[in-house]
Amino acid sequence: MATPLFRKVVIFGVGLIGGSFALALRKADAVQEVVGFGRSKATLHQAQQFGLIDRIGDEVAREVRDADLILLATPVAQMADILARIAPHLGTHTLITDGGSTKCDVVATARQQLGSKIAQFIPAHPIAGAELSGPAAALADLYHGKKVVLTPLPENSAVAVARVRAVWQACGALVSELTPEQHDEVFAAVSHLPHLLAYTLVHDLAQRDNRNLLLSFAASGFRDFTRIAASSPEMWRDISLSNRDALLREVEQYAAELYKLHQALEQRDSAKLEEMFSLAQKVRSTWTQQ
Amino acid sequence: MATPLFRKVVIFGVGLIGGSFALALRKADAVQEVVGFGRSKATLHQAQQFGLIDRIGDEVAREVRDADLILLATPVAQMADILARIAPHLGTHTLITDGGSTKCDVVATARQQLGSKIAQFIPAHPIAGAELSGPAAALADLYHGKKVVLTPLPENSAVAVARVRAVWQACGALVSELTPEQHDEVFAAVSHLPHLLAYTLVHDLAQRDNRNLLLSFAASGFRDFTRIAASSPEMWRDISLSNRDALLREVEQYAAELYKLHQALEQRDSAKLEEMFSLAQKVRSTWTQQ
Repeated sequence: MATPLFRKVVIFGVGLIGGSFALALRKADAVQEVVGFGRSKATLHQAQQFGLIDRIGDEVAREVRDADLILLATPVAQMADILARIAPHLGTHTLITDGGSTKCDVVATARQQLGSKIAQFIPAHPIAGAELSGPAAALADLYHGKKVVLTPLPENSAVAVARVRAVWQACGALVSELTPEQHDEVFAAVSHLPHLLAYTLVHDLAQRDNRNLLLSFAASGFRDFTRIAASSPEMWRDISLSNRDALLREVEQYAAELYKLHQALEQRDSAKLEEMFSLAQKVRSTWTQQ
Repeated sequence: MATPLFRKVVIFGVGLIGGSFALALRKADAVQEVVGFGRSKATLHQAQQFGLIDRIGDEVAREVRDADLILLATPVAQMADILARIAPHLGTHTLITDGGSTKCDVVATARQQLGSKIAQFIPAHPIAGAELSGPAAALADLYHGKKVVLTPLPENSAVAVARVRAVWQACGALVSELTPEQHDEVFAAVSHLPHLLAYTLVHDLAQRDNRNLLLSFAASGFRDFTRIAASSPEMWRDISLSNRDALLREVEQYAAELYKLHQALEQRDSAKLEEMFSLAQKVRSTWTQQ
């Protein structure tokens, strides 16, 4: 048997993201031992029962000392606390990566908590969501063919980045790189803004007296447009606040664009409307998800 | 064999909407003869070849004189011309219905062209789109289980409305009724506004220098949110202008709602954000397409 990529991987948060990471590495024979930490004993027991982890972590200090890789797969809001707990005990060769949907805030937190050990942290954002969560939702092929964006820091060594790239590739992911700032701008535009727009439409209709009448005539266009408005409110509150600056700029840019369309409609500017719709139609119909 | 609902049906526009109507009625044995009119000879021949129509109409005057039912299944912009041509020749028992996506403008046009014969026109909007168009896209079950909204006029007799209801039901549709004004308000909110919002997002991104980078990271949320931005620009230009007043009100209401969200984000009002997202999430996740 080939030497596995990592001897010991420690995962904080053994739900969809962390559990699928564990399953994928195990399936690829890329890890010898997976140790899990989490806030809920029941969830950890479930993760062990489902074969996601070999052991439930005992003491953080002891477990991270000889870990090859640590994955932070908790909500971003919990990462400061976890990083504070692991920082004093990190082995010199231990690498850390994460699964957070925003990167500038995670990097700032990591700098604060890890101090001079920041070079050991190689941030990542796996673009693989699902409607479900928890250990029961974990899938060995969740990352298969999906994008994972690494946002390496100036302090990271090329070897460290290559190792973290390799571990996500072992999960079947297509790995690309952006700076943390680029990442947050890109995802503000193509992910966070659409979520806010979908929530806004449903919220708008939800407050009306005739909402039941309206919703009874909503069809497949509405269904697809608002699918993401069924996403977790807590998660999207956190993402919105984490990526506030880029997202504010996007909302402002969108509002300006919507104002132009309002003007064209008000002025019955048929040519302008067709021009706007045509460019959008052309771009959308030639776009394919990569 | 039972007596069919209609002896002779004349269809203007034998594409997806008109062709599927013809196929559905024939499948249900609800019609004896279907005659088609259209602007393109090639399309009409195709429709005949595919068995959508029995005959290509010859003279409008002669064909509509003894028709039991006329369906206007052309773009709304062509209906004034067709109504002007058929009005002088309409049989006294002939009923007219249509497949237009907006109703106030179609009703205004029909009043203008039909004059005292307006009682013979029972407007309808079948909520059954598809990405494809033309005779080749026609399906016998396109309307099966789909909504058709009738917007009867004060002049329509109960018998006339019941007959048009029956013909759409024979196509397998679930028929409901709204006034033309209610119809246009409801569809401005749940269909026309989402289309404009999706076009606006894609148009916004399409104009940027880094659009290829942005689009390369767009994933399934973006895909579903913008699916309707691949719709026909000409059709949505026309629908937007046809339903301009209701749609302007919707865009303004949406912009006000988006401004509230922008404020909450700017003020880092975590509770407000969660409240907005939670209401939307609750309403969207309990909604089911009827």
